[in-house]
Amino acid sequence: MGKTAGLLIIGNEILSGKVQDANSPFFARALRELGVDVRRIAVVPDEVEVIVAELRAFCRAFDFVCTSGGVGPTHDDVTIEAVAHAFGRRVVRDPSLERVLRDFYRTRLTEAHLKMAEVPEGAELVGREDLLFPVIAFRNIYVFPGIPEILRQKFHAIQERFRDTPFHLRKVYVNMDEGDLADSLNVLVREFPALQLGSYPELNAPGYKVKVTLEAKDRGPVEGAVARLQALLPARAIVRIEG
Amino acid sequence: MGKTAGLLIIGNEILSGKVQDANSPFFARALRELGVDVRRIAVVPDEVEVIVAELRAFCRAFDFVCTSGGVGPTHDDVTIEAVAHAFGRRVVRDPSLERVLRDFYRTRLTEAHLKMAEVPEGAELVGREDLLFPVIAFRNIYVFPGIPEILRQKFHAIQERFRDTPFHLRKVYVNMDEGDLADSLNVLVREFPALQLGSYPELNAPGYKVKVTLEAKDRGPVEGAVARLQALLPARAIVRIEG
Repeated sequence: MGKTAGLLIIGNEILSGKVQDANSPFFARALRELGVDVRRIAVVPDEVEVIVAELRAFCRAFDFVCTSGGVGPTHDDVTIEAVAHAFGRRVVRDPSLERVLRDFYRTRLTEAHLKMAEVPEGAELVGREDLLFPVIAFRNIYVFPGIPEILRQKFHAIQERFRDTPFHLRKVYVNMDEGDLADSLNVLVREFPALQLGSYPELNAPGYKVKVTLEAKDRGPVEGAVARLQALLPARAIVRIEG
Repeated sequence: MGKTAGLLIIGNEILSGKVQDANSPFFARALRELGVDVRRIAVVPDEVEVIVAELRAFCRAFDFVCTSGGVGPTHDDVTIEAVAHAFGRRVVRDPSLERVLRDFYRTRLTEAHLKMAEVPEGAELVGREDLLFPVIAFRNIYVFPGIPEILRQKFHAIQERFRDTPFHLRKVYVNMDEGDLADSLNVLVREFPALQLGSYPELNAPGYKVKVTLEAKDRGPVEGAVARLQALLPARAIVRIEG
């Protein structure tokens, strides 16, 4: 089994439709490219008890947990408190983070800013060599900020931590109704147990009706399934094969 | 307390980063406009046991549950099976849905197409008067398809089912660092318990640094909090007030 991840997106603004979550699509694509299987995404409000319950479940269920949001100086920034609470740790002020904040804000520094120097006791600071402000990690949980530009920069700085064997992916574009394709796909599911097989109808795609994705950690079942699908379908039904 | 909702987005293609989920942002905005508080979004794979566990939890926790994805004729379409299984019901073929499919596909109809006529025993068909193919509902769960265009059309046809007292929302754009704003926001949180208060820093917004959102079902606490915030902040710090 390859590595798995869960994404915990924290923020009332997403649940209330004020802001569209750009972070889970980024995490999903980036982790997949690194060979990591994202198994769940949850979007939850800025409430300590709700976040605590998710963190405990995610931490056990997945190799990696990435959170976004809820870090900052204001009342609704409760992620660090939730991580600490989930594992019975105190929240402590990290001296190295405090130094970064004092250097950055200088005379403009307020007590509220120093909230951003808080970590769960025993946390690890990841990416110190490349990041002005490192990623706070606790066990297998990586805490990212909600602002997409900063999240991406931090992720790229530490992404080698997450790398696993890559997925092999091929895409077969088919000019048939999904209902006529279903029997052939069921054959593939039966014959290639390691295969991750997806079938995506497109209403307005030029020249095809369904995109079939065939994926696995090993090349063998993917290539075998592509060949089998070509044998099962009428020749003209396959518009093109990619990947 | 107003009505609440949970969104269950079903699809490996979203978790693997192949497709960006457009449905949860749509649901979140549309339900909010109807006065419904979306409390959780979960994105899960096309796996019956995972979906069953979520459905049971969501069904108890929220007034409405909207699902998207996993309905169709292929192997990975398991939502209906999961709804039935979650509540100990059989999957049965609905005669009225079968008729719609037979009329639509005529001589092209396959056994796979008829999978789309399956419902959990005891399901309700909602929106029959306006929709060629109605929404399948069971208890407080509403099953929508993954294709965004069709999902939206179906949602709009039945949205009056979800309507609740509207939220009052005002937005205050502030030209201050979030760290300098935090104390004043904490005052509002203390003095207006009914208020939903959000604070959203923007890196590249023209003319302001933080958008503060003030929201409640009643107008009173919202207007009271806006006035209080105006009194707390330096006059020039507020760039504009909307809503």
